[in-house]
Amino acid sequence: MVKEGRVHKEPQLALSIGIRDRPGILAALATAIYAHGANVTYVGMDVGEGEQARIFFELESVGDQDALEAALASVEHVVDLAREPTFHKIFGRRIIVIGAGAQVGAVVMGAVSEADRHNIRGERISVDTIPLVGEAEIAEALRATARLPRVEAVVLAGSLMGGDITTAVREVRDRGILVVSLNMAGSVPAAADLVVSDPQQAGVMTVMLVASTAKLDIERIRGRHY
Amino acid sequence: MVKEGRVHKEPQLALSIGIRDRPGILAALATAIYAHGANVTYVGMDVGEGEQARIFFELESVGDQDALEAALASVEHVVDLAREPTFHKIFGRRIIVIGAGAQVGAVVMGAVSEADRHNIRGERISVDTIPLVGEAEIAEALRATARLPRVEAVVLAGSLMGGDITTAVREVRDRGILVVSLNMAGSVPAAADLVVSDPQQAGVMTVMLVASTAKLDIERIRGRHY
Repeated sequence: MVKEGRVHKEPQLALSIGIRDRPGILAALATAIYAHGANVTYVGMDVGEGEQARIFFELESVGDQDALEAALASVEHVVDLAREPTFHKIFGRRIIVIGAGAQVGAVVMGAVSEADRHNIRGERISVDTIPLVGEAEIAEALRATARLPRVEAVVLAGSLMGGDITTAVREVRDRGILVVSLNMAGSVPAAADLVVSDPQQAGVMTVMLVASTAKLDIERIRGRHY
Repeated sequence: MVKEGRVHKEPQLALSIGIRDRPGILAALATAIYAHGANVTYVGMDVGEGEQARIFFELESVGDQDALEAALASVEHVVDLAREPTFHKIFGRRIIVIGAGAQVGAVVMGAVSEADRHNIRGERISVDTIPLVGEAEIAEALRATARLPRVEAVVLAGSLMGGDITTAVREVRDRGILVVSLNMAGSVPAAADLVVSDPQQAGVMTVMLVASTAKLDIERIRGRHY
């Protein structure tokens, strides 16, 4: 059920931790988090100039937040620690548009317009793009969307896609990602959740399928061509 | 120097590890990675149905890759392990467009067209968007771009931005992110690296500043208005 989101819950806590960049500090922090019963859902790093770096955690199942933060702040080489809004709160659910430049541009125009209308009402939907050509390149990028955080749907924007891209469509659908295809040559449209001929409408409909403020439901239109 | 990239090097190795979702497994894996002298630059999780989950690592300073993979595969609750292409290789450098829907759409049209032309020649540039209104909301999203991986540049697309957004512009520039602003009311344009009146051109120029296959150099045009 797409409306509930592939990422079922927003992480409970996001922390930005300033550190002196030393080997083993992630292991030390992860061990402290584990000792407090919390689960890590995301870790990012920003290695700055010199030995300063920042590490970003998103966490679930946090019991005593203050105790956890105190424990992390006392780990060796930790310089400072701040709570941040989660990426889920700021950038929300993601739609990824992959394919040829002209068509990616048209899809994203529709998707951004529609996302704007929902985000004004408190939703957070972001629309991300990668212009790409080539069967291997597109299949690889499509598979990678299942490894990215917060991805709900992919739009394939091109005029001919098949072969390994079609295999990748089935794989990412199995991982819970909604796949919308433009009407095009090749075997991809038959493997997608939905086929839309007009690229702007493809963008609009994909946002409507992801937005909790819209009524469109994939279960009622799966397999259709528009 | 933007052309070299804020993220100076692509991670050396990306691994996708299937696990039984147990507390402490990140700590165990991070400890094994540390024991092999490697550094973690990114960790993502995909918690699936039941107790199966996948954890994605991007790593640097990996000495003996095979030995590291064998050590990780032997950690308790690890089910399988596969090498994957890095996100840097697939999605490349990121440009984030933030602001009002109509203007975000126009900027991204220009940026996607231009990125397509460079990606065809082997570059990887992705253009990501979040349509948003409100000083606090935009400032928060702008600050968050500095915590996201692979972000090189931000385009602020609107008609009035100032206050805390201007403070956030200075903060993310200090973190190495290039900030391009549309020509607009408010104090943001004066704080940006570059001001461009036409939104499509703003998208095109930002991609040209990030692409290693383009000649445009921010050092020669910083502070200009077009």
